[in-house]
Amino acid sequence: MSLTTEQRRELVEAALGHRKLDCLIENVHLVNVFTGEVYPAGVGIYRGYIAHVEADPDDAGNRDADELEADQTIDGEGMYLTPGLIDSHVHIESSMMTPANFTEAVLPHGTTTVVTDPHEIANVLGLRGVKYMQQSSRDLPMRQYILAPSCVPSVPGLETTGAEFGSCEVAEMLEWERVIGVAEVMDFPGVIGGSERMRGIVGEALGHGMFVQGHCPELTGRALSAYLCAGPRSDHEIRFGDEAREKMRLGMTIDARESSISRNLAEILPAVRDFDAPPNLTLCTDDKEPADLLAEGHINHAVRRAIEEGLSPGQALRAATLQAARSVGLDELGAVAPGYAADLLLIPSLANMQPAAVMVAGEVVARDGKMVTSTPDPGDFPVERENTVHLDALAPETFAVRAPVGEGTVITRVLSYAGDDSLYASWEKRELPVRDGKVDISGAGDLHYVGVFNRHGAPENRFTGIIRNFGIGEGAVASTISHDCHNLTTVASNPEDAALAANALVDCGGGIACARGGEILALLELPVAGLISTLPAAELGPRTDHLKETLREMGLTGADPLLRIATLTLAVIPEAKITDQGLVDVNAQKLVPLFTDEQ
Amino acid sequence: MSLTTEQRRELVEAALGHRKLDCLIENVHLVNVFTGEVYPAGVGIYRGYIAHVEADPDDAGNRDADELEADQTIDGEGMYLTPGLIDSHVHIESSMMTPANFTEAVLPHGTTTVVTDPHEIANVLGLRGVKYMQQSSRDLPMRQYILAPSCVPSVPGLETTGAEFGSCEVAEMLEWERVIGVAEVMDFPGVIGGSERMRGIVGEALGHGMFVQGHCPELTGRALSAYLCAGPRSDHEIRFGDEAREKMRLGMTIDARESSISRNLAEILPAVRDFDAPPNLTLCTDDKEPADLLAEGHINHAVRRAIEEGLSPGQALRAATLQAARSVGLDELGAVAPGYAADLLLIPSLANMQPAAVMVAGEVVARDGKMVTSTPDPGDFPVERENTVHLDALAPETFAVRAPVGEGTVITRVLSYAGDDSLYASWEKRELPVRDGKVDISGAGDLHYVGVFNRHGAPENRFTGIIRNFGIGEGAVASTISHDCHNLTTVASNPEDAALAANALVDCGGGIACARGGEILALLELPVAGLISTLPAAELGPRTDHLKETLREMGLTGADPLLRIATLTLAVIPEAKITDQGLVDVNAQKLVPLFTDEQ
Repeated sequence: MSLTTEQRRELVEAALGHRKLDCLIENVHLVNVFTGEVYPAGVGIYRGYIAHVEADPDDAGNRDADELEADQTIDGEGMYLTPGLIDSHVHIESSMMTPANFTEAVLPHGTTTVVTDPHEIANVLGLRGVKYMQQSSRDLPMRQYILAPSCVPSVPGLETTGAEFGSCEVAEMLEWERVIGVAEVMDFPGVIGGSERMRGIVGEALGHGMFVQGHCPELTGRALSAYLCAGPRSDHEIRFGDEAREKMRLGMTIDARESSISRNLAEILPAVRDFDAPPNLTLCTDDKEPADLLAEGHINHAVRRAIEEGLSPGQALRAATLQAARSVGLDELGAVAPGYAADLLLIPSLANMQPAAVMVAGEVVARDGKMVTSTPDPGDFPVERENTVHLDALAPETFAVRAPVGEGTVITRVLSYAGDDSLYASWEKRELPVRDGKVDISGAGDLHYVGVFNRHGAPENRFTGIIRNFGIGEGAVASTISHDCHNLTTVASNPEDAALAANALVDCGGGIACARGGEILALLELPVAGLISTLPAAELGPRTDHLKETLREMGLTGADPLLRIATLTLAVIPEAKITDQGLVDVNAQKLVPLFTDEQ
Repeated sequence: MSLTTEQRRELVEAALGHRKLDCLIENVHLVNVFTGEVYPAGVGIYRGYIAHVEADPDDAGNRDADELEADQTIDGEGMYLTPGLIDSHVHIESSMMTPANFTEAVLPHGTTTVVTDPHEIANVLGLRGVKYMQQSSRDLPMRQYILAPSCVPSVPGLETTGAEFGSCEVAEMLEWERVIGVAEVMDFPGVIGGSERMRGIVGEALGHGMFVQGHCPELTGRALSAYLCAGPRSDHEIRFGDEAREKMRLGMTIDARESSISRNLAEILPAVRDFDAPPNLTLCTDDKEPADLLAEGHINHAVRRAIEEGLSPGQALRAATLQAARSVGLDELGAVAPGYAADLLLIPSLANMQPAAVMVAGEVVARDGKMVTSTPDPGDFPVERENTVHLDALAPETFAVRAPVGEGTVITRVLSYAGDDSLYASWEKRELPVRDGKVDISGAGDLHYVGVFNRHGAPENRFTGIIRNFGIGEGAVASTISHDCHNLTTVASNPEDAALAANALVDCGGGIACARGGEILALLELPVAGLISTLPAAELGPRTDHLKETLREMGLTGADPLLRIATLTLAVIPEAKITDQGLVDVNAQKLVPLFTDEQ
């Protein structure tokens, strides 16, 4: 965004009073993100931008008492006025909503701008997926900026996915409207190790003078310095206090995260709150599910949590507005000042952070937690009707694990979970019986079949294995959300239920399904790329709740039962993962055989 | 500046220890401008950039204790290590030195980067002048960034100057290396009033995504909002506390100034120091004379003053480094962190702010107040040998004031000073005797002849009048520094001394001259554009001191006798000025007649 010369001319005239303002907001307490002050003020708006701010503080800073004239006057009723909130890193796909439905879910909570990374849909649909996210967010009543996904796939060579992005694809995306940089550069070993691919991708963004978003959990010392030297300047993967301190000292922008599963503010903020108003702090949600958006909010929840963790409201809001905008180069966002976009919140309580009114570009778009403007129909997108689960119906025997012997036993490498909550599996070896050429787990209640099936047009790429302590008892769960390749992934006690759940997804174009005893227990349809529903949050929330309840009832009692299945293939998280290419030893970043000779 | 892909690759390898560092600085207390902390640290440098920072703080943030290997190790002896200082707004011409000599004067004080506005020389030599400043600063051991002058001339129509810049000239300059935006947009009435010229010039910078520097003394309320809406985002002309508060609240970057004559920190900083670490504060010098640079320093003096005014050392340094760099879009400057340029200071005392060592791009360039590297010969510039005083020798009668009558009296408009120190003259009317068709001031000890003579090739543009309480007694002073047109300006008790002083400048190519009783008392030669000497500070300082002493001895006992003559033509300062076009009523921005019928 950037004001045109003509817009500037008109805004100047409106500031001077030569044009009538569109809107005047009076009787508010302005939270000034430059000075940290809170004081009475009035704000004049013209054509979506702030034309004038009239301060009325005690110390006579107000030296221009002329009446401001406007078409419309909003009485702020003494509430706080703040800039609209900015999410510095989010995957909209994780909300399972379209950009339009996501807008309706987060705008009432005061998020007026998001910096998105559409790398989930990119892994399924490639540039077409990113284009869909870009085009379908074009005329929304919130601002959705896009970073070009940098790691599609996240671990080349260890999985097959729907697309591969190199510097050419990134260069193309960087020319698109509202694309402002390169998204989380997750392949930090590649960046540090000097991989041609990552150097090319990062180089494209830097050559455009654009932002490069980082991602480097627990990277420290020289390797962290190397990563910073390579170009990325932010990180949202920080989980520990000393990690936050080290990264902040090195000038890295800390996008402190409060997602559905990763609630990092409690660790990060106490560790950095004695720093002197560091400019390199923002807030982000990364991944947040619809039910959580409905229940607790979005970035406003992160601001509320930041205040609970000891930041002053001014500093928490500065992080979530001005600093977030500056960190990604959005110079007209994040402040209540002349020449800035009129994205504003009226908030009765800074501790509560629930806006009574949300304005974007000078228009009231939400009041008291509800949209008051209709989101324009984003148009017809064939992608939304395309079945991206490119698989024929799968027979039950597809889900069995074939052994190298006909009968007897085999020593099998098993993915093993320690507890309910963890997304971290480790390797175990187990001697298992073989019947009819297949591994038989019927006698072992802690074991399930696990399978990953390429759904991107290469059905020959598939792999089945054994998993321990996954958490479900009898039955099967299948998912086409399966980070980051989003192949079809199943976990089942028996091949029949596996086939039932999987085929339900093949039919409906993807989602998550649970089956037991030949019956579908729950089916969450996500027909857009197998990741996204076309339902709004109010309808989708109860459905995801129902699915989660079903999974809990099946035995997945941990914090987020959905993520258990969705992260089985995520070969960047230690240490045992499975993809359509086989078992992945994440620490070694290589495939390991399913069967072995040694115990 | 921006690291190339290849430089980044090497820097990454150096960070990892795969390349030997060029330099390691050990045993220092790092002043961290992100966090405000001070802690023990080591810094590794490779090819001019910081490859690694090893923190060694109490709280075990240091998790990478490997030895760093380097070609050279510098023992910081426990001193403070800070980023090099940045002057956010300076006219190098005001130092009367070439860019190379200016470098030698300010580098030992720790100024490693300046953001310059060459608008003085631009008014004399046009694009050739700016090009000279750009080319002659190319390979210096400090960073000189250039803003394209926006107001050449400053008041079109009321004076004739050596050049006129419109949007075409600005567009051309914006393509030059190290030009990073548009310089102080002084014509704020034009900006607010929507003048085509100013809109075009500002539009060029914004269209390039570049910085637009502001200049709007005492602008307030709606007019200030209008100015901000038009594009400029900074101001260095702030002289009052409430002005600073209003502008800072509106997000304007305050380039707080400590120049030779305008010492604004004492007003600004106490007014804003209760704000919560506002990000929109920088420090600048604007105009600083050689003797002051030698005696008190440069931006380090401003930092010292800021600390005296109550800023913490961390905040004062953040303003003079990181915030200054960010305000103008220099992303690789202003911090001690991986990927930043290795511009560093070793400082024994933060209160004193006198660096023991100054590094630029990883090389030690000054120690203990002295340069230790030779400034490379910037090359041969014909501009330096060009006499820009395009006037033939002036006869004494040129300086007389012709009256509309042969004998009798005339009522004359007189520029009148109230006191010694002021640069502000007001209008007075005075009935004066006429002899031989000329106004005769021989009987009035408080009156002098004043004259302005176009020296840019239009000698027909000249004007003489009468001035009161200028301050000198018998004799004459002449100057080719005469803001901003830099025409030849004289003040004299008699036409003979006026001619003597003026012709000395015609001969030598400009400068400042004093004459009395047919004798030159002092002559400061400024042969480059009539503004700049080719002498270094150590030689130039004593010469300017001698000139000032002479002026004081003649009667100019105010704070800065040089500025008295140099600002007579500055038709943006109220209320009575004179140019080569006539008498200027600054408040009305129009020419007024010398003689009048009414008392």
